[in-house]
Formats: sequence, structure tokens, C-alpha cells
Amino acid sequence: MNIAFIGLGNMGAPMARNLIKAGHRLLVVDVNAAVLQQFADEGAQVAASPRQAAAECELLITMLPAASHVRAVYLGEDGVLAGLRAGTPAVDCSTIDPGTIRDVAAQAAKQGVVLADAPVSGGTGGAAAGTLTFMVGAPEAAFAQLQPVLAQMGRSIVHCGEVGTGQIAKICNNLLLGISMIGVAEAMALGDALGIDTQVLAGIINTSTGRCWSSDTYNPWPGVIDTAPAARGYSGGFAAQLMLKDLGLATEAARQAQQPVMLGALAQQLYQAMNQRGEGGLDFSAIVNGYRRPR
Amino acid sequence: MNIAFIGLGNMGAPMARNLIKAGHRLLVVDVNAAVLQQFADEGAQVAASPRQAAAECELLITMLPAASHVRAVYLGEDGVLAGLRAGTPAVDCSTIDPGTIRDVAAQAAKQGVVLADAPVSGGTGGAAAGTLTFMVGAPEAAFAQLQPVLAQMGRSIVHCGEVGTGQIAKICNNLLLGISMIGVAEAMALGDALGIDTQVLAGIINTSTGRCWSSDTYNPWPGVIDTAPAARGYSGGFAAQLMLKDLGLATEAARQAQQPVMLGALAQQLYQAMNQRGEGGLDFSAIVNGYRRPR
Amino acid sequence: MNIAFIGLGNMGAPMARNLIKAGHRLLVVDVNAAVLQQFADEGAQVAASPRQAAAECELLITMLPAASHVRAVYLGEDGVLAGLRAGTPAVDCSTIDPGTIRDVAAQAAKQGVVLADAPVSGGTGGAAAGTLTFMVGAPEAAFAQLQPVLAQMGRSIVHCGEVGTGQIAKICNNLLLGISMIGVAEAMALGDALGIDTQVLAGIINTSTGRCWSSDTYNPWPGVIDTAPAARGYSGGFAAQLMLKDLGLATEAARQAQQPVMLGALAQQLYQAMNQRGEGGLDFSAIVNGYRRPR
Amino acid sequence: MNIAFIGLGNMGAPMARNLIKAGHRLLVVDVNAAVLQQFADEGAQVAASPRQAAAECELLITMLPAASHVRAVYLGEDGVLAGLRAGTPAVDCSTIDPGTIRDVAAQAAKQGVVLADAPVSGGTGGAAAGTLTFMVGAPEAAFAQLQPVLAQMGRSIVHCGEVGTGQIAKICNNLLLGISMIGVAEAMALGDALGIDTQVLAGIINTSTGRCWSSDTYNPWPGVIDTAPAARGYSGGFAAQLMLKDLGLATEAARQAQQPVMLGALAQQLYQAMNQRGEGGLDFSAIVNGYRRPR
Repeated sequence: MNIAFIGLGNMGAPMARNLIKAGHRLLVVDVNAAVLQQFADEGAQVAASPRQAAAECELLITMLPAASHVRAVYLGEDGVLAGLRAGTPAVDCSTIDPGTIRDVAAQAAKQGVVLADAPVSGGTGGAAAGTLTFMVGAPEAAFAQLQPVLAQMGRSIVHCGEVGTGQIAKICNNLLLGISMIGVAEAMALGDALGIDTQVLAGIINTSTGRCWSSDTYNPWPGVIDTAPAARGYSGGFAAQLMLKDLGLATEAARQAQQPVMLGALAQQLYQAMNQRGEGGLDFSAIVNGYRRPR
Repeated sequence: MNIAFIGLGNMGAPMARNLIKAGHRLLVVDVNAAVLQQFADEGAQVAASPRQAAAECELLITMLPAASHVRAVYLGEDGVLAGLRAGTPAVDCSTIDPGTIRDVAAQAAKQGVVLADAPVSGGTGGAAAGTLTFMVGAPEAAFAQLQPVLAQMGRSIVHCGEVGTGQIAKICNNLLLGISMIGVAEAMALGDALGIDTQVLAGIINTSTGRCWSSDTYNPWPGVIDTAPAARGYSGGFAAQLMLKDLGLATEAARQAQQPVMLGALAQQLYQAMNQRGEGGLDFSAIVNGYRRPR
Repeated sequence: MNIAFIGLGNMGAPMARNLIKAGHRLLVVDVNAAVLQQFADEGAQVAASPRQAAAECELLITMLPAASHVRAVYLGEDGVLAGLRAGTPAVDCSTIDPGTIRDVAAQAAKQGVVLADAPVSGGTGGAAAGTLTFMVGAPEAAFAQLQPVLAQMGRSIVHCGEVGTGQIAKICNNLLLGISMIGVAEAMALGDALGIDTQVLAGIINTSTGRCWSSDTYNPWPGVIDTAPAARGYSGGFAAQLMLKDLGLATEAARQAQQPVMLGALAQQLYQAMNQRGEGGLDFSAIVNGYRRPR
Repeated sequence: MNIAFIGLGNMGAPMARNLIKAGHRLLVVDVNAAVLQQFADEGAQVAASPRQAAAECELLITMLPAASHVRAVYLGEDGVLAGLRAGTPAVDCSTIDPGTIRDVAAQAAKQGVVLADAPVSGGTGGAAAGTLTFMVGAPEAAFAQLQPVLAQMGRSIVHCGEVGTGQIAKICNNLLLGISMIGVAEAMALGDALGIDTQVLAGIINTSTGRCWSSDTYNPWPGVIDTAPAARGYSGGFAAQLMLKDLGLATEAARQAQQPVMLGALAQQLYQAMNQRGEGGLDFSAIVNGYRRPR
């Protein structure tokens, strides 16, 4: 299939490569000339603009850093909507606010285009391995069209509801994740300060009502889980800066919906403080450092 | 075995009955004469004081509401330590602060008594069914002595370390539980406000990184888990007042250890506000009511 | 002087009337035809567009609800910058984020226009009475030009620094105001719950280190200050919704600057909860209702 | 007058010296032999026990570190109540929880002694200079008896109501103080991060609705107030550890009264984190360090 792929960053590039491997012909767009050259070498066609890529494809995928880029790429003068033919399936895999994707999708609908949202989880590792989770907001028919192609880039393709619900699912999950990681950090640090063995404590929590992914799979205390970032100096994993971005999207969406999120807002500030201390590039589980006594 | 059992409240009475069923002879003490009469009718011997019960038993168990009762029962003029012979195993199953049990155990040690702590989880239902979890703080040898008897009242008997670590394990787990329940409440309420189906959202969270007991087993949103208190008007379960008690113990222990617990302290206040609204008798998952729009 | 005045809402209309009273000729623009008719009856000239008003004036003032309106009015096709001649002083009195005003001012600068920001405090009462405070961000020379006209609408005209600093001053002050009001609410409610006379408590606070405007001038507890909104059922004053807007601007600016504001973020959520309870139209000091026991 | 003075620490010693200077004969008790020797050299009589001091005095004053010391000194075997004659006025100047002083006063009342509470503010500087503020909880008649003596150690002697209200006034004021100091720190740090001159910002706040003692008298930002601890590296002043103690009393009293204090509880944790970073000995306004970017 001819697929337009716009946005070849840390996530987009390995996702696009998985589509090339699956046998698709790619039309690619990015601001980074070096990456475009690499993709040309790998057999992709470099398009002159989002408009041209959109005009010549059978399916369009975008993977961009933030809402402003999504607006520019879709709505700009040489943007996607200026080129896309009615009936061509389109999906935005960026993580942005639900309001923006609903706006852009509404504009797309005016010209007969169904634009879905499908933010991912799984990180750059999952993007390379093709094991991402896609949270898809789309009408049933559009989901059915997109599903096989998304499955070539990911392992789990979840239908969340209408357009925008992919973003909602992602930011709600990550709001909870950000909170529960801090909860685990506080529980482990308190236990350590009071004098219980942290391995024993984690074992009890993981078989009790405190059980959660942040404890049983990704425990922030060094020495508890061998495969967690805590075991390798908090390198790799999900950077605190990205958690901060997602908590920003969640609290901003909450503000617009006039929905209180008390612990969520405080969690955002705690990651912000971590970032200000210069630790924003570490895995988000390093939030536990702010709770440990200087040694 | 002759077992002294002091404290026959909502938890203690069914626990003691399981020991009678298991064939032990009980010496019981309580402030409630009616309960004492019931136990006499069931074959227990009513002791005149903690001192007398302690003097005549082979093993002593206490189950009391708060630290002040534990101090009074053990250290008072007619208290346990005035009667207990050196070498008699003793265990306190109350949920209190780690400092108090360590103090009382230190006094017991002076007269050759090993006092363990073994707070429970599982509620009155678990006490009646004999399916409680005991979190035991005790030296290895004492744990080995107590384990068979505790197993007649519970299903899972966990050794947490030295005296006091049972309390530490319980308050650290419940600190995390209190936080993650509010995290789930915020995520579900935000998703609902933004327009995703709450069943779909819970399904995504439960297979993703937000996964936790508060969501996959005890989800606070009505209609998600049929067996959770949310499905029956938040009756039964673990009362918010008890969660508030445990968060009080956790933050007070944190204060004494000079250990910050940011989300934990805020969680405590949110349950306090719930209590002030008159909802302290509901299951703690009803914290979600504070996040839902008036309908 | 010929003054263009764009935005005749609850604040803008009384401000513009004070300029008419002071003898200026006004060119007015608004989306509300009824208000335009009133101003025409009062002698103002109704302009066809921001562009036309800007083209014909000697000084331009805007007073708009939010950043999106400011962008549209200044940068739109028939907007202010399409009409304003180089050298004409311009000032935006809206309360918006510092980033937007700096952006728009940078665009204005390209065509020789100095655009200042001058958000106000004092509410609709101050706007009508001409007693507003203006917090002005502008170069020295521009401030000198604007000062006499602003002084016809306000009592205190404060120079805060370069463009954007007016907004910064306002959101930082209101961040602190939002926090200290909740602090007073908590202190008064705690004192009441513990059994001290609230008048006595307020008297002590107001002569001690807890002293602040939220306590000595605007105390949220009924019966303490006769002239405060608490004495009249929290009507009038500064609506909680507006405090919520300003805290939204502050926390969003903090997010962009990666600056933690822990208490500020929590304060925002507490006003959000108040708003969700349906009390957003009350004065912001009614936040104390969330702390008082049901009577 | 013969005055028993029990507790000659950092605060008690200079307070007692002011009474010697005023011509009273002191009977002193303390655990520190060196201090007792100094007082003996200055003409005081060293009593053998609280009981003896109480038995021989016409008025009794205690100034102790915490509630446990107050209980021991008053209720112990050789304690104050074992010696004090009916009708002798007594006042405790310690800062403790309202519940403890009410308990002890109730026991004193049984033997005809009116025990007042009178915690102070003003620090060691105020104690030496005799400029303390006393917040007195006592019946009218007892207040009238104590007032002249307290006035020899302080400048402002405030009657707050019945026994216990002195403590309530102090912890409520300091709850608000702890919150508003963090509020000022957040507002100043945000303003700095966004680019306004901090002197200008403080000037605006101090003449606007954000005005408070923490900003206009004790501003935490270096360079704003010459006489504030911020101008001398946060030395002297009111140590963060003491603020932490008072916030602990306030949140614990709130817990017992089931009264939520959201910002107060978070403020406590932020000072706790400051203490954990090893800055507990600095003035509490150094909380601002946690908000400033590393330079």
C-alpha cells in the first residue's frame, strides 16, 4: 500500500521502518534532511510537503511532537488537508490534547476524511520491536481499516471509542501511572526509613492491596526488580520529562473540563521539581531520589 | 493449648472463635460484659484481668483498638507484663504505630518475654472466615512458634522481620493503597468528564501501566466491577474511617522519622474531608464521590 | 485624544466610559451590538473593525477575555496590526499569559508599534469608580505616554518592567492571593473546630506573623470583617471562577518555565472542586465552605 | 514574689533572667546541671524537684520542649501537682497540643489549681529582649493574676479564651504562617523564572492583595528586605525544624478534630523535605531554596 508517513523522530522513524519491512511503499516528510536521506536510501520516496504526500497516498499516518505541529501539518497552506482525497484513511499517532485532535478531525470531516487518533505506549524500544500499544479513537469502520496496518507496528491495538478517546485513554492511564509511581516511592522510602527490609516490603505490597505495575514490574527502589530502570541507574525507560508532558496534558484537559485532579496536579509539580533539579532525563521512577535521605 | 485472648471486638471476637473451633482453651478479657458472657457460653474461661489471663496461659494474643489500649493492657498495674511468665509467646494483632509496639516489646524483653506484632488485613469478613493475612514482626524462633496458631485464624502468615516490621508493612501498604485509590478515582472521573466510556477506560488501564488492585479488583466507579463496593452503594468493604486511621499512623510515623510523604499527606486530608462530609462509614472507594459532578 | 477601545465587556465598558467622561473621542469595537448602540448614544464612534479603529486612532486600548481573542483582534486579517500606524501607542489590558502578549508585541514591533500590557485589579467596582490598579509592562518611554490616560481609569499605575511583566506581576500576586485565602480558611476552620472564638483568633492573626490581606481585610469567616463578602453571603467581590482562571494562567506559565508551584497547583484544584460543586459564581473567599462542618 | 521556674532551655533561661532582673526570687528546676549552676550564681535557688519548687512558690511557670515533658513535670511522682498548694497560679509556656494542656489543667483543677497555657512567639531574641508575645488561655481572673508577671517577659500579652486557647491561637497562626511563606516563595520564584525584577514584584505584592507578613517583613528572596534572614544566608530567625514541629501539632490537632487542612498538610511535608535535605537548622524562609533553579 502507498502510505504517507509524516514525522520521523525517535518514535516515528522506527515505526515507519516496520512498515517498509512489511512491504509498503512509503512517502515520507520530516524537517530533518539527514533522516530523509536515510529513508530515501531505504527505498522510501521523499515528498515535497504534507500536501503532496497526502495527495499521493492510500493511507496517511502522522507522528508529531505536540499539538502545534499537528495543527500546522494538517491545516497549513501546504498541509495534509489541502491534499488528502475524500475517503482516504488517516491516523495521528502523536500524544496531544483531546481537544486539538477533535478540532482537526472535525475540519477533516468537512472534506470527507475520517481522521483517527492513535497515541501509543511502549517507548522507542517498543517502536523498534513493533510491540507498541495503540489506543485508537475512531468510528468502527475506520478502526477496521486502520487495524491491520497498526498491527504491523504494534502488538496491541485497542479501540477506545470515537475520535479523541485514544488521547483520553492515554492521558488518564498516565495520570494514574504518575500518581502510583510516587505512591510506591513514598511507601518504599517510608518503609526503609522505619526499618523494614525493602525487598520484603515490596514482596508484601505485590501480593496485597497496594499491588500495582509501578511496584511489581517497575519498582523504583534499587535491588527490588532486576529488569527495572532502578537496577541500571534510572537510564532508559520512560523519561521524567515525558511523564511531565503527559501530566501537563492531563491537568490541562482537566482544567478545560473543570474537573479536579488533586493528586494528579501535585504529582505534576513533583516531576516538575525533579526536572528543575536536572533529573528530567532520567526514568520517571527516579522520583524516588527526592524521598531518600542523602547518603 | 491454653490461649489468653484479650480484646473481643469486631475483629477479635471472630478470631477468638476460630481458635475455640480449633480446639484451644481460651482465657478471655474484654470491657464488654455481654461479649464475655457469650464467650463463657461458648466454653471460654473469663479472666479477672490481663494479668491473670497472662499468668495462666501458654500463649497470649491481644487485639485492641489503638496504641493507648495496648500500653494500658500490657503495662498497667494488673496488666499482661505483671503476669506473663518468661518464655511465654505473646503477639499483638492490633494496628498501631511501630514505635509503641517496639517500646512495649522492649519492656517485655526485660522479663524474658518475646512480644511479636502481627497486624492483619482482610476485615471482619476475613476474621470470620479465617482467611486473614497476618503481617508478623518477630524473631525467627518466635515466628515459628506463632505461625501454627495464626494459621488457624488466617490464610497468609507473612514474616516481615523483627518486632515492629509487621506494623511497618501494614502502614506502608495502606499508604500506597490510599493513594492509588484516589489516583484511580481521579483517572476515572477525568475520563468520564472528557467523554470516554468508563468500562472501556478501566479495561485499558487494567491491561496497561496504570494497572493496580484499586482499579482491577476494587474499581470505585459504579458498573466496572460487579463484586466491588461501588456496585452496592459503597456499603461493606473497608470503611473510609479505617483508611483515615491507617493514614494517620503512616503520616505520624513519617513525621517521627522525618520522612516526607507528599501524596500520602494529601490523601489523608482528602479522606478527612470525606469523613467531614459525613461519608466516613462508607467504603473508602467512595472517595470518588468527591470527584463526580452533581447529577 | 482619539482613542480606539476594543472590548466593551463587564470591565471594558465602564473603563471606556471613564475615558469619554475625561473628554476623549472614542472609536469602539465589540461583538455585542446592544453595547455598541449604547456607546453610540453616548457619543462614541462605532468602528467597522479593529483594523479601522486602529487606523484612525492616536492611542489604542484592548480589554478582552482571553489569549485567543487577543491573538484574533491583533493578528487577524482585519485586525489591529493591519491598521495601526508606526508610532501609535497601544496597550492591552486583558489578563492573559505572558507568552502570548510577548509574541503579539514582537509582531507589533516589526511594524514600529510598541504594544504594552497592563492587566488590572480592582474588579467591576473599581472599573466603574476609576480606581483600578494597572500593572504595566512597557519600555520607559511608552509607559510615560500611557500613564496619563491609564490614570483616567485607575488610581494606581505601576510600572513593572518590559512588555509581559504586567501579566507576570498580576499572576504572581494572584497565585499568592489564592494560596493565602485558603491558608486563612484552613486556620480559621481549624481554630473553630478546636474551640477558640473566631473573632479573637482573627484578631491575633492580624497582629501577628499570619497577618495578610486575606485575613485582615477580606477574612472568609462570617462575622469577622463587616465589609468582606463573607458578611453578605459571598456575593459580589472576586468570583471563584476568575480566581480559577488566574491560577490556570499561573500554573500554565509555571509549566512552560518548568518552575514548580506545589501549593499553587493544589490551590487551583481546590477552587476547581469548588466550581464543580456549583459555587464558582460566589466570591473566592467562599472556599471556606469546603472546610466547615455541615450544620 | 517567689516564682518557681521549670525549664531553663534556649527560651526558658532568658525568660527566667528577666524575672530575676525584675526583682523576683526564683526557684529553678532543669535537667542541665551547668545551667542550674549559672542560675545559682545569679541568685536563684535550685529546687530538688518540681514538687519542691511548686510547694515553696507563690506562682509557677513551666517552659518545656514537648507534651511528654509537660505530663512528666506536672503529673510525675515528684511532679508539680504533688507539691502545688490550692490557689497558687500556674502557667505553662511550652508549645504543645491543646489536648494535653487541657488534660493536665483538668487534673490540676481537681486540687484547686488553675493552670493556664501561654505559648509564646518572638524567638530567643524576643526572650532575651523581653519582647515576646504571650497567647494566654485562662479564665479571666487567672489572666489578671498572670498578666503583670508575663509582662515582665514580653511586650504583648493576649487573652485568647479558656485554657487551651493559647495553644490553639499559636498553632492556627503558625499553620497560616507556614503556608503563606511557601506561597510567597512560589510567587517570587515564579516571577523570577518568568523574568520580572524580584524587587519590583515584591513591591507590587506588598501594596496589593498578596500582601502578608511573609512578604512585606520577612520576604524569603535575597535582596528584598535588608533585615530578613534571606539577607544573611537564612541564619538566625525561626528554624525550619521549629516550623515543622508547629505544623506537626496543627495537623495532629486537625486529625483529632477530623478537620481537613489540605495546604497545611502539604506545607508540613515540604518543610519535612527541607529538613531531610539537611536544611532544618536554617530559617524557615529558606524553603525558597527548593524552588530556585540550581545556579
